[in-house]
Amino acid sequence: MSVIDHTGLRLPAGLARRTAAYGPSFWAGLDSLFGLHPDIIYFGGGVPSQELIPVERLRYASDLAWADAPAALDYGEVAGYRPLRHLIADRMTAQGTLVDAGQVVVTNGSQQAIDLAARLLLNPGDAVVVEAPTFIDAIRSFAAYEATFLEVPVDQDGMRIDALREVLRGAAIPPKLIYTIPTFQNPSGTSLSLSRRHELLDVAREHGLAVIEDDPYGELRYDGDPLPSLRSLDPHVIYLGTFSKTIAPGLRVGWVAAPEHLLELFRMAKEGTDIHTARIVTRTVFHAAEGFLDDHVAGLRAVYRARREVLLETLAAEMPAGLRWSRPDGGFFVWVELPETINASELLPMAAANGVIFLPGSGFYPNPATGGSHALRLNFSALPEDRIREGIRRLAAVIR
Amino acid sequence: MSVIDHTGLRLPAGLARRTAAYGPSFWAGLDSLFGLHPDIIYFGGGVPSQELIPVERLRYASDLAWADAPAALDYGEVAGYRPLRHLIADRMTAQGTLVDAGQVVVTNGSQQAIDLAARLLLNPGDAVVVEAPTFIDAIRSFAAYEATFLEVPVDQDGMRIDALREVLRGAAIPPKLIYTIPTFQNPSGTSLSLSRRHELLDVAREHGLAVIEDDPYGELRYDGDPLPSLRSLDPHVIYLGTFSKTIAPGLRVGWVAAPEHLLELFRMAKEGTDIHTARIVTRTVFHAAEGFLDDHVAGLRAVYRARREVLLETLAAEMPAGLRWSRPDGGFFVWVELPETINASELLPMAAANGVIFLPGSGFYPNPATGGSHALRLNFSALPEDRIREGIRRLAAVIR
Repeated sequence: MSVIDHTGLRLPAGLARRTAAYGPSFWAGLDSLFGLHPDIIYFGGGVPSQELIPVERLRYASDLAWADAPAALDYGEVAGYRPLRHLIADRMTAQGTLVDAGQVVVTNGSQQAIDLAARLLLNPGDAVVVEAPTFIDAIRSFAAYEATFLEVPVDQDGMRIDALREVLRGAAIPPKLIYTIPTFQNPSGTSLSLSRRHELLDVAREHGLAVIEDDPYGELRYDGDPLPSLRSLDPHVIYLGTFSKTIAPGLRVGWVAAPEHLLELFRMAKEGTDIHTARIVTRTVFHAAEGFLDDHVAGLRAVYRARREVLLETLAAEMPAGLRWSRPDGGFFVWVELPETINASELLPMAAANGVIFLPGSGFYPNPATGGSHALRLNFSALPEDRIREGIRRLAAVIR
Repeated sequence: MSVIDHTGLRLPAGLARRTAAYGPSFWAGLDSLFGLHPDIIYFGGGVPSQELIPVERLRYASDLAWADAPAALDYGEVAGYRPLRHLIADRMTAQGTLVDAGQVVVTNGSQQAIDLAARLLLNPGDAVVVEAPTFIDAIRSFAAYEATFLEVPVDQDGMRIDALREVLRGAAIPPKLIYTIPTFQNPSGTSLSLSRRHELLDVAREHGLAVIEDDPYGELRYDGDPLPSLRSLDPHVIYLGTFSKTIAPGLRVGWVAAPEHLLELFRMAKEGTDIHTARIVTRTVFHAAEGFLDDHVAGLRAVYRARREVLLETLAAEMPAGLRWSRPDGGFFVWVELPETINASELLPMAAANGVIFLPGSGFYPNPATGGSHALRLNFSALPEDRIREGIRRLAAVIR
């Protein structure tokens, strides 16, 4: 029963089917592009600006965290450090989403929360409704649970609920859940309007669908009034939050605010996966955030708002006719639609040779054949204003 | 399609089948016992002694780690901090297991490495060969991938290979992999003899089975000469290591030394699960371990050897006739077999009321009906010698 592959290695009798989801990394595919120009301007990030990471505050917080050693170096706190869970719940509640600390399970970033939610909800072949385009790594997380995808297009008001209803009517398999990034969506930058929020939840109730609300960017609003979270409108929503965009991604601390009937399962799944998140790190994030995070986020908003303006102004000034782009009220991204004559994946190596890298749109579709060929995502959070200007000039030159 | 449960909550159209693995936590079930006596002596741990956690060294290491901020606070290092991977590979190689840093993927403890291995190898219904008894949380990890189990009994030389061959002959489903803790096994304390190591690998080759070697305790040898790791005898073995037992479990840093044909898949699965392990923590573990860990482990060995002696001596002095126990050459555990007239799960609340808690044996069997009813696991690493003596006296009194 041993299987010999072409390299002569003995393989296990067979890999799991789900490994089909682990094809070459989208991100790894970008690596070769960085050698094409000595001074690449990288619009591909989905990260806070490195100089805005509050390093001194975190070092201070880390010192406080270590005061809990050695007890905090033992196993414990499957759901996460209690004061951090209270801080999360209090901030969510202050922002209009009533959540109790007992409903919070701390995870290694919201990526792990997506994985745990998929683990609890999906059998092989189950269908997941997603925005098209949507977050690359969420697609892979669901694919690793052998999900199929139902894609619903977005417009300037987020997921099109008319299209959602149509997709559900035509679905060969009734889907299990809706995964949505309703606020400052990755990659489109658009937000689901208030009326559509209610409609989406109505549809979910009608069809018995679970709803995962992924909200990494919600606090980073630059214009207009906050929209209520889906979770604030329906306590059955599985809400995912993270400190990756407001404090630092490399610390890997996020959370799920789970509905009551899934709460114990989230705890069990977290324990079964990696027992708990590193306790020194959850303490560090708590001490960094307490009495600091609101002001810090206000500072981030000011910087990112200005960068967004520079990006939008430079796009308007430099880009030839025939391109359109989103005007996000927050978050990190602008989605650019190219003329039908330009394929973004083919454009990318030319752009890289000219010193600029973006993410081509097709990566954001579960089935790259369905869309994104003529679109690209630009990040504006991670680059200083002058680099944004220069990068867009370079990109416009290639497109022209 | 909405489903209303008995509490009136709306449930998703259905949970994943795998959630059957997430029944009540074995550990949570112990909580109520701690109230039964004002001074519980807890033999249930699988942890290093808290006073032996090198807190000062870790704080020094943490300061060095923070010197890499803010770069180390961004996303990065899916496979783990390169110097840590080199340190792991160099230590394994020095201990006789030739591994290259490029083959190492850092994980959140070996628990996550078990999860990733199961993720890459198991389809629902696939069978996994395990020692009976075996590590509780490994059972749950595999069960969460809807595995079935083939149990192979252990004796004083570890997994019985004659029984393994018999199990394979009788298997309705040819298994996919063997999960083994060959050295200072949890919970039995026994080690697989050298000849059986070769035989186990022969059987795996004959049947095309993947082998996962879980080795959390291998460095903690108190008697005799080291046995070669399975991985040192066959580079196709998936080797799991951890710093949880030698440095601190709460930091959640372990690793997999993956065979070449699975290496990229382990990296992709890690990235797809939680992107990477917290980079400040992997740096902290590196700086703590470098130039320190070998001496530290030597110190641990001296303390734990003495505690094992006290446990074994007190068992011999206090226990009535009719009990048998393992005599481990290393690790953390002694496995005690009770007379057939005593059920360990029924004994436990009586023992707790008398001030002592152990882990009943049936938790260590995938199917609790198959064994462990008349056995229990005692940890000796986490308790001072006088507490071990007093705890065994209390337990013996209850058994008598």
